[in-house]
Amino acid sequence: MTDTTGAPSGNRATSVVAPRPAGSVASRVTGTVRVVGAGLLGASIGHALRAKGVDVVLADMSPAQLRLAIDYGAGRAESPDDRPSLIVVAVPPDVTAAVIETELARYPEAVVTDVASVKLEPFRTLQQRGVDLTRYIGSHPLAGRERGGAISARADLFIGRPWVVCRDEETRPADLALVEALALDVGAMPVEMTPEEHDRSVALISHVPQVVASLLAGRFATAEDGALRLAGQGVRDTTRIAASAPELWVQILGANAGPVVEILDELAADLQEVSAALRAPEEPGARRVVAETIRQGNDGVERLPGKHGQNRRFEQLIVMVDDTAGQLGRLFGDLGALGVNVEDFRLEHSPGAQFGLAELSVDPAALHGAIAGLQEHGWRIAGTTND
Amino acid sequence: MTDTTGAPSGNRATSVVAPRPAGSVASRVTGTVRVVGAGLLGASIGHALRAKGVDVVLADMSPAQLRLAIDYGAGRAESPDDRPSLIVVAVPPDVTAAVIETELARYPEAVVTDVASVKLEPFRTLQQRGVDLTRYIGSHPLAGRERGGAISARADLFIGRPWVVCRDEETRPADLALVEALALDVGAMPVEMTPEEHDRSVALISHVPQVVASLLAGRFATAEDGALRLAGQGVRDTTRIAASAPELWVQILGANAGPVVEILDELAADLQEVSAALRAPEEPGARRVVAETIRQGNDGVERLPGKHGQNRRFEQLIVMVDDTAGQLGRLFGDLGALGVNVEDFRLEHSPGAQFGLAELSVDPAALHGAIAGLQEHGWRIAGTTND
Repeated sequence: MTDTTGAPSGNRATSVVAPRPAGSVASRVTGTVRVVGAGLLGASIGHALRAKGVDVVLADMSPAQLRLAIDYGAGRAESPDDRPSLIVVAVPPDVTAAVIETELARYPEAVVTDVASVKLEPFRTLQQRGVDLTRYIGSHPLAGRERGGAISARADLFIGRPWVVCRDEETRPADLALVEALALDVGAMPVEMTPEEHDRSVALISHVPQVVASLLAGRFATAEDGALRLAGQGVRDTTRIAASAPELWVQILGANAGPVVEILDELAADLQEVSAALRAPEEPGARRVVAETIRQGNDGVERLPGKHGQNRRFEQLIVMVDDTAGQLGRLFGDLGALGVNVEDFRLEHSPGAQFGLAELSVDPAALHGAIAGLQEHGWRIAGTTND
Repeated sequence: MTDTTGAPSGNRATSVVAPRPAGSVASRVTGTVRVVGAGLLGASIGHALRAKGVDVVLADMSPAQLRLAIDYGAGRAESPDDRPSLIVVAVPPDVTAAVIETELARYPEAVVTDVASVKLEPFRTLQQRGVDLTRYIGSHPLAGRERGGAISARADLFIGRPWVVCRDEETRPADLALVEALALDVGAMPVEMTPEEHDRSVALISHVPQVVASLLAGRFATAEDGALRLAGQGVRDTTRIAASAPELWVQILGANAGPVVEILDELAADLQEVSAALRAPEEPGARRVVAETIRQGNDGVERLPGKHGQNRRFEQLIVMVDDTAGQLGRLFGDLGALGVNVEDFRLEHSPGAQFGLAELSVDPAALHGAIAGLQEHGWRIAGTTND
């Protein structure tokens, strides 16, 4: 994993992926940041930036949502004198392009980014309308919660998460730096991709899994009670994301239809191949088709980042964190002060529990120092994973 | 959820689903229990029964596995004088029928059950061989771990889990009671089903989800690194079970091919319908197909038992439990002594963490008493979920 902190020490081995502790160090972004759309993502960006002392202006079509976000401290209301250096468009996918166009025209000095989960469609729509996109840099933080709205916003929503930034040939380096500074200030890891790369990637790791989980869970809607009583943790995990909101997903899937259709068709063919093998399980080769399906799945899941995957060469350190917004920031701040490089991060959390388990992947050589140092700072170490 | 404790008080409202605390009350099963196959399930049954004072005899084709299980305390080696009242066959699916036949012949007084995850195939195989199946009652505990073998066995593996018992017309009530006593003694909830009902049910809630998760994860085996870096908790959950062992699943899917094929074909058709809708998203009705797919998934996932599902009318109580085998037994024992009826149970657990979070669904009227009582018994309450 690349060192993305831009820490001034230049010492890659001892810097942390997440930024300096919230509130204790100045922000990287300069000037006022205007956030259009005060829902979960917009309000969370507001909270995270304000914790760094950034002046955040919030706007939203819904006066109620806007007042709620301001009441919760995600930013202030706009004023006619605002001269934002950066505008973050955090509105539903179907209005993203229109809002980007309006904001570019209204603030001719500002850099404009958006956080929509599809990147090619808004870009093409704006190009077709002949909009000058020099100051526009699309981006997408891979973060979210099951519940939406300003009321669910949290300053630590982006900590340790990838934030895709889509530059093009026209992009000015200073503008790119401003969008990457935004990602770093909220604790995310900037990842550069073309819009095409981004959309293919999220089709594979987000949009198709959503369709598959929804179709699988959809079969439970009409199933017998008796069958469902036997359900355990495995199928609960497999279908958890099927609880997602239909309105949003109709927009996302429609906007990224090309890459999604390609993978869905491949999957349908794969399903039929397994089905054919099981229909005649004694035929030569049939058992091999089934075995290869499971084995290939073993290989694939091994490659996912996180505790089951690529970070096998790291040690997992599990720290208890209270369920309050500032705790993760403080944890990453302490890790930074200890010179511990966090290679991967994951939060295990039961809704309603007063704390969660933060799983951190660290270099084996740094493990013991990290444990001792964190305990000195008052953190409770819940364990280490080492298999 | 049905009261399945068989508690002699007859007071359904104040009994717990899980049995009396391990070690503190006599077992329900009488006589010696012989467990054939000292892997994860067999050795875990041994540990749980021995904690209740039951005489457990272990047998395994592998002398090394057998010695390991005995060393860990799951039971004793067999002797020529053994007269088991109950035999539990816990061997791989492809040898289950043959071992059942051998055991029925060798111990003509014993009741024989098995724990294989498919129930119709071994039954039919034995019928076709003309074996008298009066003393055979197939069963299936819905429990497991990601790692197998005697070394991974735990006495609390079955606590709160369903244990399907397949009686037929020939089954003698006393024999059925003995198999249900086994399930209750290890903390499971007996559920009666026909073999056909069982196999259709597990195809839906276990076997098809396994195929789907494996096929989805299989696409990551050849994906670009950049795409996988964007993977988050959603896709990790959706594909977690893809880490399962190919050898076992070839046997399971082959043995339950009929019901699995039926659902796989329906899913393939569903995938193609969504794909067709996304290929022409502006056609009339196309967006509705996508929206209905997601909405139907919402409905289905709501029906799964557990925190997302049927138990909305209950309060969730989250208790910290140390990661030691006796802790869950002690917790359920204390809940029983407090007269708290546990409607559902789920354990959140990070591998390597020294404790887990036990989520218990209880009647809202019992919540405050449960919290106070558990705290008096020294339990740490991590929170309550109430949405």
